[in-house]
Amino acid sequence: MQTARKLLAELLGTALLLAVVVGSGIMAERLSAGNVAIALLANTLATVGGLYILIEVFGSVSGAHFNPAVSLVMAGRGAMPRSLLAPYVVAQLAGAMLGAWLAHAMFDLAILQFATRVRAGTGQWIAEVVATAGLLLVILRAPASRLAAMVACYIGAAYWFTASTSFANPAAAFGRMFSDSFVGIAPSSVPGFVMAELLGAGLGAFIHRAMGTAEGQGSVRTGM
Amino acid sequence: MQTARKLLAELLGTALLLAVVVGSGIMAERLSAGNVAIALLANTLATVGGLYILIEVFGSVSGAHFNPAVSLVMAGRGAMPRSLLAPYVVAQLAGAMLGAWLAHAMFDLAILQFATRVRAGTGQWIAEVVATAGLLLVILRAPASRLAAMVACYIGAAYWFTASTSFANPAAAFGRMFSDSFVGIAPSSVPGFVMAELLGAGLGAFIHRAMGTAEGQGSVRTGM
Amino acid sequence: MQTARKLLAELLGTALLLAVVVGSGIMAERLSAGNVAIALLANTLATVGGLYILIEVFGSVSGAHFNPAVSLVMAGRGAMPRSLLAPYVVAQLAGAMLGAWLAHAMFDLAILQFATRVRAGTGQWIAEVVATAGLLLVILRAPASRLAAMVACYIGAAYWFTASTSFANPAAAFGRMFSDSFVGIAPSSVPGFVMAELLGAGLGAFIHRAMGTAEGQGSVRTGM
Amino acid sequence: MQTARKLLAELLGTALLLAVVVGSGIMAERLSAGNVAIALLANTLATVGGLYILIEVFGSVSGAHFNPAVSLVMAGRGAMPRSLLAPYVVAQLAGAMLGAWLAHAMFDLAILQFATRVRAGTGQWIAEVVATAGLLLVILRAPASRLAAMVACYIGAAYWFTASTSFANPAAAFGRMFSDSFVGIAPSSVPGFVMAELLGAGLGAFIHRAMGTAEGQGSVRTGM
Repeated sequence: MQTARKLLAELLGTALLLAVVVGSGIMAERLSAGNVAIALLANTLATVGGLYILIEVFGSVSGAHFNPAVSLVMAGRGAMPRSLLAPYVVAQLAGAMLGAWLAHAMFDLAILQFATRVRAGTGQWIAEVVATAGLLLVILRAPASRLAAMVACYIGAAYWFTASTSFANPAAAFGRMFSDSFVGIAPSSVPGFVMAELLGAGLGAFIHRAMGTAEGQGSVRTGM
Repeated sequence: MQTARKLLAELLGTALLLAVVVGSGIMAERLSAGNVAIALLANTLATVGGLYILIEVFGSVSGAHFNPAVSLVMAGRGAMPRSLLAPYVVAQLAGAMLGAWLAHAMFDLAILQFATRVRAGTGQWIAEVVATAGLLLVILRAPASRLAAMVACYIGAAYWFTASTSFANPAAAFGRMFSDSFVGIAPSSVPGFVMAELLGAGLGAFIHRAMGTAEGQGSVRTGM
Repeated sequence: MQTARKLLAELLGTALLLAVVVGSGIMAERLSAGNVAIALLANTLATVGGLYILIEVFGSVSGAHFNPAVSLVMAGRGAMPRSLLAPYVVAQLAGAMLGAWLAHAMFDLAILQFATRVRAGTGQWIAEVVATAGLLLVILRAPASRLAAMVACYIGAAYWFTASTSFANPAAAFGRMFSDSFVGIAPSSVPGFVMAELLGAGLGAFIHRAMGTAEGQGSVRTGM
Repeated sequence: MQTARKLLAELLGTALLLAVVVGSGIMAERLSAGNVAIALLANTLATVGGLYILIEVFGSVSGAHFNPAVSLVMAGRGAMPRSLLAPYVVAQLAGAMLGAWLAHAMFDLAILQFATRVRAGTGQWIAEVVATAGLLLVILRAPASRLAAMVACYIGAAYWFTASTSFANPAAAFGRMFSDSFVGIAPSSVPGFVMAELLGAGLGAFIHRAMGTAEGQGSVRTGM
């Protein structure tokens, strides 16, 4: 029962996260008259607000990972049962796809799409390593009471300071693959992003260890 | 006496909320030289700031619903006396209309107007269902101390990720009907929005139940 | 000694507040290529950030009024000694003027200027009444620990939802008179604004009383 | 061991801070189609979010100075061992340079660059004095639990209200020297900025003393 709730929370939370990212990207692109900076600003602010409340809302149920790289690190650290890792990842991937579809339904677009925007190259991959390392550092070191705000602020900054607009999340890369919009990523570019993100997650966990223990220890976050 | 204060708080709060939404919409449209994304960004930030302080200011008096869909769910959950539901809704609707009129007075516009902007279609209605479900989920699950900030952040995100710019509130739909501006909604489009919002409120309450109890339980919010 | 510190805090705080408002207005106007919405957005965000930290920094010393209308209400409520009212107002007005001058010095403009922008008319005056009433309501009802954030958020919203861009402060009106820039106000328009602001402050205090006692009671704010 | 961690935290934190400032500057310039206000808005929001989480993440390890002017004042006040001052400054300068290089790597630019943008003149220098004085005032007076948010909000405001876009940090000036982008500063302009910043830091510490003791006392911040 408790496990079903956790998986439902991961599925719903990831779906809503992708609906926020994809939906606000579509709205921003439609309204911004071609000024990409304004579109990305709107996309950023919507993501920051949405991510903040999703982590607060679902955190006490499932830990609010919404991100296979985060779940992997948590399972590796013993902060969640390893048997939950695979179900978490499946729920996150399914949620991400459903969230993109929900955005399309709201904006009267074809539900089933595939992105054509290629995102690749050394700079993009370095950016995803940095983005995900930073995300894990924030998650592992944040005091529990500030985790949601800190993750949201971090991602907001990372949308701009990384060359890849900071996916930092294999489920986000997977879900965005299903949207041929502002935030999409061509399927052929997804493996490169996912590999960079997993590398970055490991790097973040390593730096966290090098820094010594801090107030937040991840276990708090998973609510276990 | 206590009841009169609650109703005054709902009326004043909803009036100020609509004055913020309509007023900032007018200001934004006037200044943005036709770039709708910039106008909506300004409208969003003003709404987020205004909603945050209105919930903080009036929350301890009336629960700061400002929204018939919220009051309905609260009454249904026993978090407020059912006898107060009808007076609350009347105060909210009257406040919403007065708020739009106050905005018009400040901007030297004709006080009495009716919106001509049609907002309808499957995408818009799905968007209102999603927007209101999300709002109720946030309200029912937020810890009391973060409720105001979380609702404000949520609405800020929902202005962008939903295709309808997230009214999520039958009183807001009612009040915006009285303003032929950026944020207006044609009277003929209001019933569809209200039905979608009520459906969404029910959906949000249902998902909340499926997730199990959380820290915030709504009753805290109503201050009763 | 304690009184001298309070007056210094009011002078410095009001000076820095006006430096933020005037300085960010100048910067925003210079960079925004004629798009007034973008300029006001930047001006708003700088004011919100600056006001927040100024209230936090000087609150424990002087109450961080920076505003004769606020000091008047506080003195009227017995939340500060009435003998301090006149010195507070003098410090605030002097600070406001010095702050505008500091902004001019930073931007290599003539230090001594007088604004030429006329701000008058029924809509503008109603807007200032509403803006200041809302400000007092926020100040009188905010829990002490959230006062700074709530005032900053309120003013950010009010920059957009009131037709006057919410001066809500006789010292701000006085100081902006000395800057012929984006945020200036012609000397001939100042008396109308100040009268509307004092009326609004009284209205805010009246509504606060009608709502009954709340957590924050103003006395907390003055640190006395 | 503890000292090595502190130095690593200062190096990493300053590197990430500069990566945020330089990276978001590059992204903003690329996307904003020549509208400098929009570019600076994006640069500001990214900096505010990034600075907030960097101070939260590294604060408990090293105090999260990331700024030789801050370390100098802290050492002068006895809030950190004076023997750590020189190593801190070296770590900050090295980190700043590495952070600019990291941004270049992410954006596929030449790693080694030197800025050509001249930033000089009385107004700019006054602005840096004011910016740094304000920063120190915030740091020395902020309650520990709000320090990160207050510093971030302050810098966000100061990007706009100071004519220099508020470097307020000799390490930032040093690091930005290595980036011929939106946020760069020509090497010949660095000494003037650094002198103004050190002057401002002293002024901020002096005003803090004149105001009397407050809740935050700097020592909390250094975590020592």
